[in-house]
Amino acid sequence: MNGGFHSNINQLVANIAASYRDHPINAAIDPSLLPNRNRIIEVIGLMRELLFPGYFGRQNIQDTTLEYHIGDLLIQMHEKLYDQISKVLRFANGHDDPALLDSIADKTEHIITQFLSRVPQIRQIMTTDIQATFEGDPSASNTSEIIFSYPGLFAVGIYRMAHELHKLAVPLIPRMMVEYAHSVTGIDIHAAAQIGHSFFIDHGTGVVIGETTVIGNRVKIYHGVTLGALSTRGGQALHGVKRHPTLQDDVTVYSGASILGGDTVIEKGVVIGSNVFISKSVPEGARVTVKNPELIIRGRAPQEFKQELIFDWVI
Amino acid sequence: MNGGFHSNINQLVANIAASYRDHPINAAIDPSLLPNRNRIIEVIGLMRELLFPGYFGRQNIQDTTLEYHIGDLLIQMHEKLYDQISKVLRFANGHDDPALLDSIADKTEHIITQFLSRVPQIRQIMTTDIQATFEGDPSASNTSEIIFSYPGLFAVGIYRMAHELHKLAVPLIPRMMVEYAHSVTGIDIHAAAQIGHSFFIDHGTGVVIGETTVIGNRVKIYHGVTLGALSTRGGQALHGVKRHPTLQDDVTVYSGASILGGDTVIEKGVVIGSNVFISKSVPEGARVTVKNPELIIRGRAPQEFKQELIFDWVI
Amino acid sequence: MNGGFHSNINQLVANIAASYRDHPINAAIDPSLLPNRNRIIEVIGLMRELLFPGYFGRQNIQDTTLEYHIGDLLIQMHEKLYDQISKVLRFANGHDDPALLDSIADKTEHIITQFLSRVPQIRQIMTTDIQATFEGDPSASNTSEIIFSYPGLFAVGIYRMAHELHKLAVPLIPRMMVEYAHSVTGIDIHAAAQIGHSFFIDHGTGVVIGETTVIGNRVKIYHGVTLGALSTRGGQALHGVKRHPTLQDDVTVYSGASILGGDTVIEKGVVIGSNVFISKSVPEGARVTVKNPELIIRGRAPQEFKQELIFDWVI
Repeated sequence: MNGGFHSNINQLVANIAASYRDHPINAAIDPSLLPNRNRIIEVIGLMRELLFPGYFGRQNIQDTTLEYHIGDLLIQMHEKLYDQISKVLRFANGHDDPALLDSIADKTEHIITQFLSRVPQIRQIMTTDIQATFEGDPSASNTSEIIFSYPGLFAVGIYRMAHELHKLAVPLIPRMMVEYAHSVTGIDIHAAAQIGHSFFIDHGTGVVIGETTVIGNRVKIYHGVTLGALSTRGGQALHGVKRHPTLQDDVTVYSGASILGGDTVIEKGVVIGSNVFISKSVPEGARVTVKNPELIIRGRAPQEFKQELIFDWVI
Repeated sequence: MNGGFHSNINQLVANIAASYRDHPINAAIDPSLLPNRNRIIEVIGLMRELLFPGYFGRQNIQDTTLEYHIGDLLIQMHEKLYDQISKVLRFANGHDDPALLDSIADKTEHIITQFLSRVPQIRQIMTTDIQATFEGDPSASNTSEIIFSYPGLFAVGIYRMAHELHKLAVPLIPRMMVEYAHSVTGIDIHAAAQIGHSFFIDHGTGVVIGETTVIGNRVKIYHGVTLGALSTRGGQALHGVKRHPTLQDDVTVYSGASILGGDTVIEKGVVIGSNVFISKSVPEGARVTVKNPELIIRGRAPQEFKQELIFDWVI
Repeated sequence: MNGGFHSNINQLVANIAASYRDHPINAAIDPSLLPNRNRIIEVIGLMRELLFPGYFGRQNIQDTTLEYHIGDLLIQMHEKLYDQISKVLRFANGHDDPALLDSIADKTEHIITQFLSRVPQIRQIMTTDIQATFEGDPSASNTSEIIFSYPGLFAVGIYRMAHELHKLAVPLIPRMMVEYAHSVTGIDIHAAAQIGHSFFIDHGTGVVIGETTVIGNRVKIYHGVTLGALSTRGGQALHGVKRHPTLQDDVTVYSGASILGGDTVIEKGVVIGSNVFISKSVPEGARVTVKNPELIIRGRAPQEFKQELIFDWVI
């Protein structure tokens, strides 16, 4: 392959076309049933407008014209959701079988109506998340700051809407939504996880909440916390098995801690300290910390200082 | 709720409108005083153009027409900043009190003029950040690479402009700016933290620098470092209290280390090793490492190897 | 500096212009040879369309018109790449020396042709990455979900194209590409690292893979893993020296582990447990875990439970 681009373009095109036909796993030719990532992100934007009116999207909303504003948003959401959901349902149900088209249209309408009917409940539970964030973070000045800028609230909000679509058995789209939140915030919450009200994630970068995690009410989690599986060597054989922990009400987990395993239950009111790595259950009310590993100090520090520094940290 | 979307839209709209009126915490109806996140991000873009001419935004800038280019950028910034800052000042000062409007206009003009007058100082301190990054990272090929692509420089740059607005007592906007940087880089620097010159954050994902942190000159920090508070169980009662550590000049903190507490002072020249977790002060010049926890090796490894591996790591 | 913006604008402009002339390190005036970050991101978008036809960019691609679609994408890529690559080659070769312009044009054409001729190989190796991800993650429902939403695949795909440009000795642009992936995913892979086929990064936030890392085939890495250097106190003196580890085929590294040093070789089939911190080589087939630090439990937990909890974790 000598010379410039234009003398080689025919060969380049032919080789790439052959690659598409040889490796169909990452080439979707002729299916027309895949969702569109940009449309999904637009749906998230409309949903944020609906959940936090006046904050995102159109501002200066008047009480007297509120119903027109909401109606317009719902019409836009319906249009985009109808297109995307009907595609993924056909994708999951044997593609272009014409016998299914009518039932898929009905099912799509049902899902959208159900989803939009849950907007007030999602809004209500998010007021508890906002309140928990304000009460839990001394650096928060007011709740508007939290709505505008806190990554934890952003990720939890997208999780809450994706989780409703997941419960309505919509394929693909819920995962695309939470992975969008992951890319914006560094917080990776699987759409199938179950999370109670008044949930607060502080800072958030590096948080992982696995597919079969169950979280109660008033739980507080810091950056770098993993709620994970013990081993995934089983691969696809573990699909659907409970592999991630259960956190009951009023649990706090400090930064960098890992809680692993499907049988692990962190009971009501437990506090898990920074960097704790645990795969066993913890009974109600306990506080778990790592006995700090010995620190070694070199340099100009006096000897007696070295002892003092081996502190026993208490949360 | 049976049937499709169109037969239910009136009920959906009514329920959502009721939700807005029932839960005003996350519904800003009729206030018209909230900032606009997209406008704030546009201000950040203009500011980057002003700080790094020729790199971002318009390129091919000629020396002969430099003043016109700068003037044009300043006019654009003034327009956007005026709109956003006057809104948040009114938001913070009892909303639409007409008696305040004149003084808010004056205050806004004063803040913008002060802020823009500090652009040369911000540029000057950022040359020291760029130089520290180049000297500290063997994989950097030249300073242009750093300006174009290093997340640490991006986050520190946005922090430096947000910090000036914070010092000018602008509400809400500084936090929105640094949280935008957090979403782009995974580096979470509170706008109120104090940071000296020649600051270098390498890789950066997962770094948290809390509100009351004080950092000296020539400090170097790796990914996953937390400069945090010991406990925030006090919640809003701790608002404004010094809860985060002080790092004096020439301190280095390796990846994954946590330094916690408002009374914790890491003195001049100290090196903190990877994964150290510390909430006590460290005297000048000391090097602190974790005594590595014993590693357990299973499998085909020879016995004698197992001993050897329990190494004593030195930075 | 009293009064409003308009009475001060001349002084503000003059001060900023002086700052540009005093500090040329972050002011690119008159060079016209810098790449444009937005154009580079557009190239990444076109490349994703080329690598995953039907998934990103234009959808509903027909087999009968495939060649026209590919040809159109290649023409667009050539146009953008020509502009950016010829700029960075001139930037690296003494700027506007007219004697070099012809040879730079030839070199640019050669690089683009070589790069585009490797698209089928990149596509082929990415089918192995997709397959490894599907087999390794029980929560993956199908390969489309992985292509649409997995951050690991996104970052590895951008790394694979940037690495080809790196091998073709293109300055600046490969680093800009991988740092874009870093900003989207929290996964920081240097463009010069060498990575085999069937590579799977799960979750990914906080992963760092340094410049001189060598990774074999079928390697699996979790979030928060650092493949780093032992110390970079040498700064620019270490430029180009092998400072990062080698991972042979079939290695697994669990979350939060750090593997450091240019002489460190993790041999075939080794499993490194969560939070292991290691800077020595590990022989074939071994499994390395941290002996878990003692956990301290306070509160209402029964005494006998405390012993039980000091578990010996096995992957």
